[in-house]
Amino acid sequence: MKSLRDSTVAIVGLGLMGGSLALALRQANACARIVGIERDAATRAQAKARGAVDDASASLEAVHHADVIVLATPVRTIVELLVPIGKLARAGALILDLGSTKQDIVRAMEELPPHLQPIGAHPMCGKETWGLNAADANLFQNAVFALTPLARTAAQTLAFAQSLAHTVGARPVVLDAARHDRIVAATSHLPFAVAVALQNTAREFAQAEDLLFTFAARGFRDASRLAASDTTMMLDILMTNSQNVAPAMRRCARHLVALAEMLERRDENALRATLQSAAAVQRGL
Amino acid sequence: MKSLRDSTVAIVGLGLMGGSLALALRQANACARIVGIERDAATRAQAKARGAVDDASASLEAVHHADVIVLATPVRTIVELLVPIGKLARAGALILDLGSTKQDIVRAMEELPPHLQPIGAHPMCGKETWGLNAADANLFQNAVFALTPLARTAAQTLAFAQSLAHTVGARPVVLDAARHDRIVAATSHLPFAVAVALQNTAREFAQAEDLLFTFAARGFRDASRLAASDTTMMLDILMTNSQNVAPAMRRCARHLVALAEMLERRDENALRATLQSAAAVQRGL
Repeated sequence: MKSLRDSTVAIVGLGLMGGSLALALRQANACARIVGIERDAATRAQAKARGAVDDASASLEAVHHADVIVLATPVRTIVELLVPIGKLARAGALILDLGSTKQDIVRAMEELPPHLQPIGAHPMCGKETWGLNAADANLFQNAVFALTPLARTAAQTLAFAQSLAHTVGARPVVLDAARHDRIVAATSHLPFAVAVALQNTAREFAQAEDLLFTFAARGFRDASRLAASDTTMMLDILMTNSQNVAPAMRRCARHLVALAEMLERRDENALRATLQSAAAVQRGL
Repeated sequence: MKSLRDSTVAIVGLGLMGGSLALALRQANACARIVGIERDAATRAQAKARGAVDDASASLEAVHHADVIVLATPVRTIVELLVPIGKLARAGALILDLGSTKQDIVRAMEELPPHLQPIGAHPMCGKETWGLNAADANLFQNAVFALTPLARTAAQTLAFAQSLAHTVGARPVVLDAARHDRIVAATSHLPFAVAVALQNTAREFAQAEDLLFTFAARGFRDASRLAASDTTMMLDILMTNSQNVAPAMRRCARHLVALAEMLERRDENALRATLQSAAAVQRGL
């Protein structure tokens, strides 16, 4: 297996994640060559103009010469791409993805030919903005970089992925895909769903109150900010993690109803205790 | 009635709001004299050291010489203070408060002696940090500054309050107290409750998952940020606006459960439509 320094890295999807990884690898002068694979011609041109990639192609066949293939598209596109990638990748190639849920992807990776080395990854640095315009060489600095190896993943493949994470300034954390998906349901997908529910509630009130959004100050905008996230990406995330996200949503709704009940029965002591413990955890973050 | 320029302004409570108002008036060189009334000795000393006030007193009696009295404490303390203020304020004094809910305060203001000129106010620029340390002369810049006049409020009192709002860089919006409280239930109090519910849900998951908060990235922290707000202030807000906030919480919980149901029945079209419309409104903010 080549070192990262000597590797050709192909990145499929030059959006926020793929574009940022290209820029971060370039900034660290970390690999021999970066090839971007991207359907959108304007994005390909922009990636070359920013120096993010040495070459950009619209064709998946460009993965053939890569030592490392990084899949940085929405989750269900990654799952679909793994089939042709399995046919196109050269023997010994490392297949890494940056998808936001891991179970479906890792399951699809199990089907790759045995001469390929797959491993799942998910850097915890998503934003509600997206596309190459939002990409940033420093996006991964200090971010948790989840790595979800398969049973078939070789120790040196895991070590390579850990080294890649360190190279872009991130902190690799190794865990299995099921555990990853349970965790991010609470820390990432639920906050999105809550932002959508908050936004939809406000919109409902706004139908009878034209001043409503005039009064939406920083607090509202921060709490609902994630609702602006890319719909295609979020839909893939929710649909591939529904078994964890749906129960988390129901649990959060129960917490909200519990607060309403405390207020309705004017149970100030219970309310104070609940607010204080939430505040204590929040301030500790 | 004196102009603001010739007025002595007494500010009761030198926290985020009161302290910021003092600093903003001072920065604009807007009035003759600023007196701070504050129980905490260290805060009084800090206010004088920062030049926020000309004088600071622990005694409410210091309002006696003021032309304008601003109440900048938590809501229920404002309601309580209005009784002694009614006895101590000089004839013709303007009584303005900066409380986050308006109905209980305006009701208490109705009881003030007829020689006083009360008006409710609420600048929409709260933060999850508080205290004089967080105060900022530019806090009110471009903020909506809600003004809730009483039936008894004279036109020139309203004009004075509007002018004061403009002086600190804010945008006065006049509306009645009931309407104000309905609006902020959705735009300000609900986002806080949602942040608390999100935080409490995450904490529940964290009991069985020690990596949970390791994975809480910027998205989670922004969505839950308001949960760190001052408990005393928020408790007063919720308890004095429960008739609006509790139904808003229940409605938001229903939106969250509706999202869970779409996921559970894998109704991707409904989910996509819901996410897209929330994203469109959010991006418009």
